[in-house]
Amino acid sequence: MQMDDMIIVSVDDHIVEPADMFEGHVPDRWKDRAPRIIHGANGIDTWEFQGTHATSVGLNAVATWPKEEWDLDPVSFAEMRPGCYDVRARIDDMNAGGMLASINFPSMARFSGGFFGDGPDKDLGLAMLQAYNDWHIDEWCAAAPGRFIPLGILPLWDVDLAAAEVHRIGAKGARTVSFSEAPHTLGMPSIHSGAWDPVFAALCDENMVASIHIGSGSVLPQTAPDAPLDVMMVLACVELGVRTLTDFMWSGVLTRFPDLRIALSESGAGWVPNVLERFDRHYTNQRWRGWDFGGKLPSDIFREHFLTCSIVERTGLKQRHDIGIEVMALEVDYPHSDCTWPDVPEELWTEFTETGCTDAEINAITHENALRFFDYDAFAHVPRAQATVRALRAEAAHVDTATTSRAEYRRRWELAHA
Amino acid sequence: MQMDDMIIVSVDDHIVEPADMFEGHVPDRWKDRAPRIIHGANGIDTWEFQGTHATSVGLNAVATWPKEEWDLDPVSFAEMRPGCYDVRARIDDMNAGGMLASINFPSMARFSGGFFGDGPDKDLGLAMLQAYNDWHIDEWCAAAPGRFIPLGILPLWDVDLAAAEVHRIGAKGARTVSFSEAPHTLGMPSIHSGAWDPVFAALCDENMVASIHIGSGSVLPQTAPDAPLDVMMVLACVELGVRTLTDFMWSGVLTRFPDLRIALSESGAGWVPNVLERFDRHYTNQRWRGWDFGGKLPSDIFREHFLTCSIVERTGLKQRHDIGIEVMALEVDYPHSDCTWPDVPEELWTEFTETGCTDAEINAITHENALRFFDYDAFAHVPRAQATVRALRAEAAHVDTATTSRAEYRRRWELAHA
Repeated sequence: MQMDDMIIVSVDDHIVEPADMFEGHVPDRWKDRAPRIIHGANGIDTWEFQGTHATSVGLNAVATWPKEEWDLDPVSFAEMRPGCYDVRARIDDMNAGGMLASINFPSMARFSGGFFGDGPDKDLGLAMLQAYNDWHIDEWCAAAPGRFIPLGILPLWDVDLAAAEVHRIGAKGARTVSFSEAPHTLGMPSIHSGAWDPVFAALCDENMVASIHIGSGSVLPQTAPDAPLDVMMVLACVELGVRTLTDFMWSGVLTRFPDLRIALSESGAGWVPNVLERFDRHYTNQRWRGWDFGGKLPSDIFREHFLTCSIVERTGLKQRHDIGIEVMALEVDYPHSDCTWPDVPEELWTEFTETGCTDAEINAITHENALRFFDYDAFAHVPRAQATVRALRAEAAHVDTATTSRAEYRRRWELAHA
Repeated sequence: MQMDDMIIVSVDDHIVEPADMFEGHVPDRWKDRAPRIIHGANGIDTWEFQGTHATSVGLNAVATWPKEEWDLDPVSFAEMRPGCYDVRARIDDMNAGGMLASINFPSMARFSGGFFGDGPDKDLGLAMLQAYNDWHIDEWCAAAPGRFIPLGILPLWDVDLAAAEVHRIGAKGARTVSFSEAPHTLGMPSIHSGAWDPVFAALCDENMVASIHIGSGSVLPQTAPDAPLDVMMVLACVELGVRTLTDFMWSGVLTRFPDLRIALSESGAGWVPNVLERFDRHYTNQRWRGWDFGGKLPSDIFREHFLTCSIVERTGLKQRHDIGIEVMALEVDYPHSDCTWPDVPEELWTEFTETGCTDAEINAITHENALRFFDYDAFAHVPRAQATVRALRAEAAHVDTATTSRAEYRRRWELAHA
């Protein structure tokens, strides 16, 4: 096997939602009340809906920008690489990065869709959230069959509505939903409360996955108030997945829903063996706590329910036998600042080679595990021979992936919109 | 090398302070105002000082208790194994566990000594804290030269007093102090503020180590308010050391104090490679943040400053080459619920064997690294031949380490105090 033979499925990338996304998906009576883009005098594009505002920040749209132009300030469509918001450009970029298929999380809507529930009119919020899901499934994902694993968002402000939305979008092809890592931070009951059982039951009924992305709670990790941003950025990557897994393991949810499947989006995997070792030691040592996993260890339960999602991570690959090769998947995180695009195959191949992965392990981690876990048959639409890095990149000869400044993107945008 | 040839230094155990500890260490004028034990009608022993109270909880004194008797309720001296509070009994227990030397953290005083600063009279608090340190160094540690690496506590309510206390106890033999993992949770400036630099400077001047124990901030990790205790217990073990290391790495302190040495007490080591990988990726990828470690990577800086402290942890030993064998040390955590005593050598030997450690690696991890890091020459007092598991256990033939109920300890206590 060579680098170009890999088939790459990314279980976590991001859309910057295009300004016209609600056209054609909103009932007539609510057309005038759909979220809309305000082009600010400062050049920034801002979504507005029921008094709530949302912008994209520079760090979440860095694809091809020179590193010295990265920052956390709001940004406009004009300065972004079109692959952020235009599905045809996105497919070009996926081809250039050798990526067969991708799961795309929201930006404006927030990772778990909270944007639609902030305003006073919840009926309107639900209608727009459903329009969002319809656009995502019927327009964005439908643009290229086999290339996007449809992910829905839920009205997490109401458990029953959320469960109903799982069924609605499951029926039209969604394979996963973005669930919150910490619903208690959204003013809702925690997963420990049992209140979310209707949603977990609906996911099991629909054979769908809960994708839980780091940052999908409202609280990012902070130590001291004057700690630099770096502390938050690092801890978000190494701590939030640990917390999600720990909460679920000691919640009773996994016992009540033996078929529930959870993807730990952008959580990485290199911490998993250490945390499983602690889980198993806690379970066996602290017998006074009275936990019963049906004769299994917490580490067994982990492998029955979870998928790890790593960008590049030698520590995860080195420990693959202690994690469980069958639970490991990859992500690219396009177009965020941690993404490896366009050198996705090169970076992966270097890591696979350095850590001595076999061809079977590479195939499991690059695509087999992800397609099985999300029960998504990409090959029904894209024959295997056309799904490899080699075949996809052959389609991308026209795609320019060179470093390009924000000013240059703006120049091109203004030319195109003149 | 065989199991009985190991020499074991534990860099983290705990004292339950004996009721008479202040006798002989408090200036005459303050004798009546020293902390004192109140024997409650409920059978619980409680320390009182300036209106602040402290008790030991069952989970922190479980040595030899049957597991079904473990709990978090307050406990009395009568029900504890005497090794918790009696130094002669402690040395017996160390011999029985094959432990040459040990660092002993406080209980009543809290891990970083906060108990003495809670009350209104700070002068009195300082006098009692100094009495505590004098008792620890001159009485507890002095009871068995070569067996205890003296650890002091600091008046963390006042940075200058804390720096002065480092010098005072350094001059009388302390090798380390218990510093807080999160001084901002104690109502003080964070380590990011620069305010603690006088303490770090004093530690470097005295060639002493900052031992930072998990739980030495006032905040334990919590997810949802209704999460079970297990979530907190697990996260404390896998998250607090990560936070301490992350805070220090991105604080500037390590650059300003290239000689500062920090022991991550009870933090384990199995998470270290993953966190270092994230540190290095953050540093190299997020250049816009402008960090400069003098041409080194964060992972290099880690190995210049930190000591990892693990109880039993296959994931740490398996990754020893990615952690750095020279920065790894062991602890026993006697008499807390995670401790391996009395089977310390058996549990360690099993792990060393299963992970294929060489004799040189075993010697480094069991004692050489700890004695070098704390600059403590145990062998000046205990010749090597008498420091091994074999030699120490030969002194402990009379020590009963069998499972013993709380009721049985109480029966023995009442007999002895009749």
